[in-house]
Amino acid sequence: MSVLVMKFGGTSVANLDRIRRAAKRVGVEVAKGHNVIVIVSAMAGRTNELVGWVEETSPLFDAREYDAVVASGENVTAGLMALTLQEMDVPARSWQGWQVPVQTSSSHSAARIEGIPTDNIMAKFAEGMQVAVVAGFQGISPEGRITTLGRGGSDTTAVAFAAAFDAVRCDIYTDVDGVYTTDPRICEKARKLDRIAFEEMLELASLGAKVLQTRSVELAMRYGVRLRVLSSFEEQSDNAGTLVCAEEDIMESNVVAGVAHSRDEAKLTLISVADRPGIAATIFSALSEAGVNVDMIVQNISEEGRTDMTFSCPTNQVARAEQALEKAMADAVLNYRELIADTAVAKISVVGIGMRSHTGVAARMFKALSDEGINIKVITTSEIKISVLVDRKYTELAVQALHDAFELEKAG
Amino acid sequence: MSVLVMKFGGTSVANLDRIRRAAKRVGVEVAKGHNVIVIVSAMAGRTNELVGWVEETSPLFDAREYDAVVASGENVTAGLMALTLQEMDVPARSWQGWQVPVQTSSSHSAARIEGIPTDNIMAKFAEGMQVAVVAGFQGISPEGRITTLGRGGSDTTAVAFAAAFDAVRCDIYTDVDGVYTTDPRICEKARKLDRIAFEEMLELASLGAKVLQTRSVELAMRYGVRLRVLSSFEEQSDNAGTLVCAEEDIMESNVVAGVAHSRDEAKLTLISVADRPGIAATIFSALSEAGVNVDMIVQNISEEGRTDMTFSCPTNQVARAEQALEKAMADAVLNYRELIADTAVAKISVVGIGMRSHTGVAARMFKALSDEGINIKVITTSEIKISVLVDRKYTELAVQALHDAFELEKAG
Repeated sequence: MSVLVMKFGGTSVANLDRIRRAAKRVGVEVAKGHNVIVIVSAMAGRTNELVGWVEETSPLFDAREYDAVVASGENVTAGLMALTLQEMDVPARSWQGWQVPVQTSSSHSAARIEGIPTDNIMAKFAEGMQVAVVAGFQGISPEGRITTLGRGGSDTTAVAFAAAFDAVRCDIYTDVDGVYTTDPRICEKARKLDRIAFEEMLELASLGAKVLQTRSVELAMRYGVRLRVLSSFEEQSDNAGTLVCAEEDIMESNVVAGVAHSRDEAKLTLISVADRPGIAATIFSALSEAGVNVDMIVQNISEEGRTDMTFSCPTNQVARAEQALEKAMADAVLNYRELIADTAVAKISVVGIGMRSHTGVAARMFKALSDEGINIKVITTSEIKISVLVDRKYTELAVQALHDAFELEKAG
Repeated sequence: MSVLVMKFGGTSVANLDRIRRAAKRVGVEVAKGHNVIVIVSAMAGRTNELVGWVEETSPLFDAREYDAVVASGENVTAGLMALTLQEMDVPARSWQGWQVPVQTSSSHSAARIEGIPTDNIMAKFAEGMQVAVVAGFQGISPEGRITTLGRGGSDTTAVAFAAAFDAVRCDIYTDVDGVYTTDPRICEKARKLDRIAFEEMLELASLGAKVLQTRSVELAMRYGVRLRVLSSFEEQSDNAGTLVCAEEDIMESNVVAGVAHSRDEAKLTLISVADRPGIAATIFSALSEAGVNVDMIVQNISEEGRTDMTFSCPTNQVARAEQALEKAMADAVLNYRELIADTAVAKISVVGIGMRSHTGVAARMFKALSDEGINIKVITTSEIKISVLVDRKYTELAVQALHDAFELEKAG
């Protein structure tokens, strides 16, 4: 018995017509001989409506009740999908999280999946059931309360089921047809990737390519689940979309897989900080306590006991960051001459596992930006990623220049 | 610990404002020292929306999936009600049917409650929880699937909880302020009853006074649950609404408690049926197999081996009844000269436990109708009820005449 997991997001099940279209795709896979586990989200708009009611009722809501209310959206889709499949003469039934059961932690609204017993569903498959439709995004706590995994949790549900059932693949149907070398809206040469490595996808996901939930990619990497991202709005061939897979499953690839960008970045610089051991810890503890998500950090060489410290964070956290640092100054745990905020920057990153074995990627990147007259404000690197901050007005230009420089329009 | 059950129907929880008003009433009872079990329906309109989706998806739907989809409406209200109570600093949590668990039969969409273990909720009450909000209308089958009790099932849920928890009372909040001597829309002298006996309520419910589900009244009678019907849209005193209770709790009462009417009646007469032993069984088996709900039956005295047989049924079943009888004629299991259908009749009934000990009720009823020139077409009687069929155009006149004749505007 080969199990395939197929996940349909909110726009793919937004109304009865779309549920029918999704069910047809499930039918195609059943015809190929798969037993299919379908993970469904709530119909588009439903979750927002339910969340709105909860927040209006109780601004500081009890997360257990929030979960009980919000999880109902997925239950509706699961039942309707099972009925649609039955109408197509495909033996199917729905499962709610607690019926499987999807065992989670008790962290309501942000629960972690801890176990998925396969016996119930496998027994039904053995009896001739061909499709198990499971309400995504939800589970049951050790106390027997309904939990949810947090927004985008249905991707995580899908990957967790694929891991638990040792599925041949986990297909994530969404409103884009795959993962691109960069955002097609700002670079017309953007090319859909046939394959991308987990590590690359993780960097791209956390850099703002909103195709897949970071958590679900991490989980897929840990359990070696072959993830495929594809569109539910187009006819699909067998190798449609983008396969997110282990590095060794990618025969040849470009050194750089993609160029990501994020406009929601601000750069803050502390000028002439009194330097002493532990000064970085002091600064970033203060920021962390204030709830500031610091991304990039750069420290210049210290001279005469003073240094400059630069970091980036989301633009809407700048005020909070300034407040926290001014308080630290007032409390005399920190001493600096000036705090400069630049809220008009963008982060541009090149990502690729090929960087591990190829040198010169950074030089090529900096030259391409320099050729366009784009000044680099901050640089950080990881093993498979180089990110720079530039003036926000250069976002499109920088992305296009890098896409050209690494010849991403050509397949690797 | 005294447990009170309060049930709020769909119009009483139609939006967040109304949920707040309902929660305030719960708060009043909590302040009196009760532990309250609140049974909620889906927000008005929600169940119809969900049913519509199911029927559009699959006209001959799998009732198990229907139940899973439709039950989600009550879950939303239960969570929102618990949150509203928490906002008022009343310790509360929601329970879905499977969490209690409300154990039911496997008759999906028409399940019967078979047991309600009280330990979970009682343990929470003992810990200081003051309100348990339970999603009405739903339960769990022995197979672990979600079941629903059928339309109006939330009343039944409420009474079943009141019986299981030995509640002091079961208050049913609805959009009317009690049970009336007759329909106030057609008789302005109609008077709200302070008390009514279970048996009378049962007759009135089955006669079309849609205040309470027949099933819930039967259950209340069997377990001696004191049921109170009252409006969620008016300020309430301690003895508001109508108490449905055992006969012995009603000190004094009118001979007749109320006058009911139903316009959805048709009269069919088989003229000159060949009479033989078992002929009634033949006719009514044929009708039953065709799904015709026969109500009143009258057979005239047989003459020369032939008789006339009259019965009534809902107007939309007349065609089906005619078809069934014509087929029986064609199959030679039945022989009659003519089948006459009168689809413009109404049923008028007087109901009262006092009839058991008072004679002359029928005579007084027939005289009142005769005085108005209303011809009686069919009569049937039970221990506490007399029903007649009359021309539909006389419905209002007949109700008003009987209300006057039995002086129902005066308290008993």
